[in-house]
Amino acid sequence: MKASGLIVEYNPFHFGHLHHVKEAKKKANVDCIIAVMSGSFLQRGEPAIVDKFHRTKAAISSGVDIVIELPYAYAVQSSELFAEGAVKSLAQMGVNSICFGSESGNIEPFLKAYTVIEKNKPDYEYALQKQLNKGDSFPVASQKAYQAIDLTEIDLLQPNNILGFSYVNAIKHLNLPITPLTIQRIQSGYHDQEIDTHIASATSIRKEFMTNGFSNKMTSTLPVESLQQFKKYYQTAGEIHDWEKYFPLLRYQVLSQEPEQLSTIHGVDEGLEYRLKRTVKQAESIEHWLSLIKTKRYTQTRLQRCFVHILTNTTKQSIQQFIGLESLPYIRLLGMSKTGQSYLNSYKKNVEVPIYTGLNKFNKTALHLDEKAQEIYYTSLPIPIQHSLKKQEFKLPIMDE
Amino acid sequence: MKASGLIVEYNPFHFGHLHHVKEAKKKANVDCIIAVMSGSFLQRGEPAIVDKFHRTKAAISSGVDIVIELPYAYAVQSSELFAEGAVKSLAQMGVNSICFGSESGNIEPFLKAYTVIEKNKPDYEYALQKQLNKGDSFPVASQKAYQAIDLTEIDLLQPNNILGFSYVNAIKHLNLPITPLTIQRIQSGYHDQEIDTHIASATSIRKEFMTNGFSNKMTSTLPVESLQQFKKYYQTAGEIHDWEKYFPLLRYQVLSQEPEQLSTIHGVDEGLEYRLKRTVKQAESIEHWLSLIKTKRYTQTRLQRCFVHILTNTTKQSIQQFIGLESLPYIRLLGMSKTGQSYLNSYKKNVEVPIYTGLNKFNKTALHLDEKAQEIYYTSLPIPIQHSLKKQEFKLPIMDE
Repeated sequence: MKASGLIVEYNPFHFGHLHHVKEAKKKANVDCIIAVMSGSFLQRGEPAIVDKFHRTKAAISSGVDIVIELPYAYAVQSSELFAEGAVKSLAQMGVNSICFGSESGNIEPFLKAYTVIEKNKPDYEYALQKQLNKGDSFPVASQKAYQAIDLTEIDLLQPNNILGFSYVNAIKHLNLPITPLTIQRIQSGYHDQEIDTHIASATSIRKEFMTNGFSNKMTSTLPVESLQQFKKYYQTAGEIHDWEKYFPLLRYQVLSQEPEQLSTIHGVDEGLEYRLKRTVKQAESIEHWLSLIKTKRYTQTRLQRCFVHILTNTTKQSIQQFIGLESLPYIRLLGMSKTGQSYLNSYKKNVEVPIYTGLNKFNKTALHLDEKAQEIYYTSLPIPIQHSLKKQEFKLPIMDE
Repeated sequence: MKASGLIVEYNPFHFGHLHHVKEAKKKANVDCIIAVMSGSFLQRGEPAIVDKFHRTKAAISSGVDIVIELPYAYAVQSSELFAEGAVKSLAQMGVNSICFGSESGNIEPFLKAYTVIEKNKPDYEYALQKQLNKGDSFPVASQKAYQAIDLTEIDLLQPNNILGFSYVNAIKHLNLPITPLTIQRIQSGYHDQEIDTHIASATSIRKEFMTNGFSNKMTSTLPVESLQQFKKYYQTAGEIHDWEKYFPLLRYQVLSQEPEQLSTIHGVDEGLEYRLKRTVKQAESIEHWLSLIKTKRYTQTRLQRCFVHILTNTTKQSIQQFIGLESLPYIRLLGMSKTGQSYLNSYKKNVEVPIYTGLNKFNKTALHLDEKAQEIYYTSLPIPIQHSLKKQEFKLPIMDE
């Protein structure tokens, strides 16, 4: 059996994702779709709206065959490291292709962009460094560096294009036997705030839910299994997760830690610890705090990732041990369908690292960062609910009924 | 002008305290009473019920002439270090006597106990160590050591006697030109839980307030100025401080820190970090958590002090710089009456360390631990209220109107 890989967050799983799963099966001509999914906190430095267990269940019920977790050490990172972790873990699961969504649905420009950048590497890097030294943020600096080398194939300021390009880049760079594929996204843009059709972006669905709860507009955008899981989580937890709910804890963490301690946290660089300590005293909410810290150099996304690492107290040292590895140290299997089970049965002898399911004393050390992130993720909820939701950690993998 | 010193927490200031202030003036034959008061967190490892500013105001309005703050580094400590800090700071303020409350009102047994212990030091220390090695808590072990050297002068298991003895011990040990005096407490015991007369213990007053709010029973125990400050704080803050309000933050701190980080915290010794990490996962409240950690070796008070240091993220290193100093590095003046002002005007040339009042950029480093403790103390309140109460830090000393 052949498998194709998707790199996902499913925050939440919507009709656009369903379309992607179906199209990927066709395009890659495979029976088995393996999704590597971020866990508690996401690439843009935000808590997932519902927990990873309910998002896994939604995916498995909607046609995804295997869901594995992208370890925290890669999930809350710049697109480059995020892509590296995701692509490596899919490679370890034996996929022959990786299929991502893009505006054009055409893989050529991504491949061409890779060739252009490789050919002009010194010029690109010189231009990039020049802009960074001028105080530009990374996305702006790299955009200007692309212009400097006349890269016009794709618009690399578009978040989805950046991610897509990062996947291609990682596959090529790591020299993996994986074909990159892309499928055209139906919805026009990632930043869309309005829901028009039943295919809507995750951002607009979250926004609609925050404002109007389970409105017709909101519920019409989710496949029935995904809506069911969303509702189930909402009923159990009593709320969904958003940054503001973590503000008291994050603020307390920065108030209580000394600058020297803060500077050991992953992402707290270049004296950001002092800026954090100074601004926390006035901050009245996460949004307000971000507006107090934000400068040309620090994008909101970068600051939010930083906030996640402070919240989870994740040090540079603990991330460092994951960087530059040839393969990920483990696979965390969150869920699978019957097809996924068959695939795994035949393929797992080729997986050279341990495949972990439920948390137990044998894998506790390896899964430490992921477990901690999950624990901290739940701290926005009442304590008895935290205790009850935590039990899901021990009951994996989630199986399709 | 001559001054006598009191060592206080005023949690809250009640009729027993008023009686003590009046009697101390007579017994010491002085015009000026100087109280050294714990700030945000108290010797038994608890947050003060209302903030130090309102407690200072109550004291100054009720006959205390000068209130200085016992630095955090001494305030949340075993009776020995607590006494050392308090006695030294009063000595630096030039008091000729220190007057504490005791069951008997007789200073002789305290002086005699000091002599007996000094004379039998090796035997005492041998017996103490033996009991500690057996796993006894410090209070139990020292009680047994007292028995071993036939110390029968005073019952050193009584909290007030322990503190009184620690003051005498510190005065003698440091060879200070201070006469220890004691006044008989009117109320029978520190642990009393019932309010019978209008002189009641602080413990029973807090208990009555927690259960019945501003009942007649409760309000009848506080001098009018103290009641006024209590009510004022309650109206501003919307609540009073108790341990349970800090549970989410304390729990989060222990969840997010690694054992190695926890072990840098003052009071986290002998592998307690692992016990804390293990038990926090089940804990549903501070009280529940304490019951899960408590053993023969760790008294509740010791654990509570530990909780305070974890909450404020106070490291062993930051406390260490205060230990073994000949004098305290600064005096923090919280408030004074007209008499206190005259005393200070004439005496301050003799004070060899800086006298700080309002927080400002010149004293910020020195007052760091106290400021941080105050900041963390307020974290149980809504954020806009924290911002408003914090302003008091800059408007010192509090003066009697």
